[in-house]
Amino acid sequence: MSKPLSIGVAGLGTVGAGVLNLLRENADIVGTRAGRHLAVTAVSARDRRRDRGLALDGLRWHDDPVALAADPGVDVVVELIGGSEGPARALVEAALAAGKPVVTANKALLAVHGAQLAETAAARGAPLAFEAAVAGGIPAIKALREGLAANRLSRVAGILNGTCNYILTVMRAEGREFAEVLAEAQRLGYAEADPSFDIDGIDAAHKLAILAAIAFGRPVDLGAVHVEGIRDVTALDIRLAEELGFRIKLLGIARRTEAGPGAGIETRVHPCMVPCDAPIARVDGVFNAVVAEGDAVGRVVLQGRGAGAGPTASAVVADLIDIARGRHTPVWGAEALASIPSVPMARHVGPYYLRLMVVDRPGVIADVTSILRDHRISLESLLQRGRAPGEAVPVVLTTHECEEAAMRSALERIAALDAVLEKPALIRIESA
Amino acid sequence: MSKPLSIGVAGLGTVGAGVLNLLRENADIVGTRAGRHLAVTAVSARDRRRDRGLALDGLRWHDDPVALAADPGVDVVVELIGGSEGPARALVEAALAAGKPVVTANKALLAVHGAQLAETAAARGAPLAFEAAVAGGIPAIKALREGLAANRLSRVAGILNGTCNYILTVMRAEGREFAEVLAEAQRLGYAEADPSFDIDGIDAAHKLAILAAIAFGRPVDLGAVHVEGIRDVTALDIRLAEELGFRIKLLGIARRTEAGPGAGIETRVHPCMVPCDAPIARVDGVFNAVVAEGDAVGRVVLQGRGAGAGPTASAVVADLIDIARGRHTPVWGAEALASIPSVPMARHVGPYYLRLMVVDRPGVIADVTSILRDHRISLESLLQRGRAPGEAVPVVLTTHECEEAAMRSALERIAALDAVLEKPALIRIESA
Repeated sequence: MSKPLSIGVAGLGTVGAGVLNLLRENADIVGTRAGRHLAVTAVSARDRRRDRGLALDGLRWHDDPVALAADPGVDVVVELIGGSEGPARALVEAALAAGKPVVTANKALLAVHGAQLAETAAARGAPLAFEAAVAGGIPAIKALREGLAANRLSRVAGILNGTCNYILTVMRAEGREFAEVLAEAQRLGYAEADPSFDIDGIDAAHKLAILAAIAFGRPVDLGAVHVEGIRDVTALDIRLAEELGFRIKLLGIARRTEAGPGAGIETRVHPCMVPCDAPIARVDGVFNAVVAEGDAVGRVVLQGRGAGAGPTASAVVADLIDIARGRHTPVWGAEALASIPSVPMARHVGPYYLRLMVVDRPGVIADVTSILRDHRISLESLLQRGRAPGEAVPVVLTTHECEEAAMRSALERIAALDAVLEKPALIRIESA
Repeated sequence: MSKPLSIGVAGLGTVGAGVLNLLRENADIVGTRAGRHLAVTAVSARDRRRDRGLALDGLRWHDDPVALAADPGVDVVVELIGGSEGPARALVEAALAAGKPVVTANKALLAVHGAQLAETAAARGAPLAFEAAVAGGIPAIKALREGLAANRLSRVAGILNGTCNYILTVMRAEGREFAEVLAEAQRLGYAEADPSFDIDGIDAAHKLAILAAIAFGRPVDLGAVHVEGIRDVTALDIRLAEELGFRIKLLGIARRTEAGPGAGIETRVHPCMVPCDAPIARVDGVFNAVVAEGDAVGRVVLQGRGAGAGPTASAVVADLIDIARGRHTPVWGAEALASIPSVPMARHVGPYYLRLMVVDRPGVIADVTSILRDHRISLESLLQRGRAPGEAVPVVLTTHECEEAAMRSALERIAALDAVLEKPALIRIESA
């Protein structure tokens, strides 16, 4: 065996403690698989006195995480502080600038500053590894960047946020509304006190931006991601979806669009209706899933736990083993990057589900359908649920493929109709 | 970019042609991901004159595949001949002995001679890569050996043979019997003229032996795998399974058993009843799936196409990219291998499904259940389907966990009862 690999860990929260524990508990097998002992020798965290249920004796303590980058006894820096700015960013930049390999679970940092960090990593010849940043314990980065590297990928999609998937799963199983289930998830610790990062799709957008960069071999482009969260999903729409043979999932989708002036990469995070029998429709609770479609391999689906100390530590230590073995892959999978334009959401083409609350009176359906016709949107189905003359009833429409811009304009006009009582619900239909 | 990697391909059947085509069609992205051009420069196949719909101009032709190992213009040998003996084995041995990296899709060769080949590969420092040997296009080897390397795995299970899964899927969907569906699968080209290799579980056993070696870091041990195929699965049992909330799948399972004198690795291929809502129960048709359970990561499920030119070529070329990048992993994941004993099937412990055809008369159930009691087998449920005094009726029993040896002895006595009219059907129940 070669000499031990000396590791400095910044951030000793749940994940940081998980990494230290995993390296200790599985030291034997990690050592044989890495070909050398992986030894944490230095740590940094905010509060030295806090009890983490973790023995830190014999480890060098740095109050300033950036000092880990300069510690001559540290071969590899593990950044588990989180956040796209501040000490996390400063540490990763300093470590890469010093030519030190970095392992991080920080999706925000990668999504916001990944393009520049990857350039520094390449210039310094320092690995920058981040398997834990996307889909937790699922080796999704490795699968896309190495396992499916022979493929021209056409699409990568995933359930990338466990909190949203948990909330949607409970809403469906129990027929309850979003706000109520969110409050319960917060009590149970499945959702943060400030849940916006998860439920507004931001976390999923960070992860999708990273996946898209890898799938299509181009620098990460968070700004191009269209983001909608799950706040507007109702129990009614979940039930109607079920009747139509769909489940509602918050997906992140990166797709190569080939045709016409809109050719490029479309990246979007929003609630989707997926067919009940699609594998991804069956991924429930806090589980994550990633679907990749390649020209040679067809469709590959990976699923597993997307968060938590164990799964995240599993991914962090796998990266450390790669570094110990000298298995190196460029950040976006290649040195020579593609320059494929991002396609704006207005150019998205697909089928839609539309649910209106309308006054049940003659002529309303005719008004709605003629607006759709004016925008050249072709109906696939229309269903008025129940009869209640003069009262509010839901009307459900599904369309054939049409352009987002057309749908948006049509929807604006439909929402302005007198007989339409609430903001219409719009959910995009995905093949899976 | 570094200089091109020069590849020699032996075997130009469906998969060989698929590899050549993929390397040509995706030369651009494969080159950027490999960091160098991957160029096939030499080939070998049985019949030089056969039209493969493939331009072979400018490639060196070797009538003897073993000559590829000695060809000084070949950097990496790709073996796609197949079979555990003969030219495939001779070529791989010669290439490794010469210190040349080898990529192969040959599960039989790896399962039968893998222990020795891995030793040669290690001694010569030559990579031996075989992602395509298990689960086709699913990057299962990479996921287990690298992606989940930080975990102590407790269990790996999979749908590893697409032909069997296709037959079982059609039997269930259409309520038809094995022989009829097999004959149809043969007509459609989904099953070989001599189907034994697939339907008797041999192919799945080869793949499972390889997965087990990687999951538990020990040399491959095909002889230890208990193998049963799907010939005895009936439409009746599939229907009864469905009523009990199960699907019948041919699984390969490698499990670490911790308790008592039976501690070790159990490896087995046989029809299983899995809960309908388990992800693996939903993997239908020719698709494959691999489930891995690790102490840190929990359960990870991978699914995709297990065979065919495209998926197999995807895996072969991914291995070539790893070699071009210098990403190296020891054959069984570590240099230092574990010596964990294999556990014989008689020691297997689990719940069972038992279906008897009995004469409907008083006392039969009492005879059957007292035999089970004598063997300390505890019933979970018992169901007699219909009433037809004096005639044959099915009786379905499910048991709590018991030892295979006890179940076998009990079954022998049950089968010998006068009132039991056919060979009882025994199917093991798996949690998933």
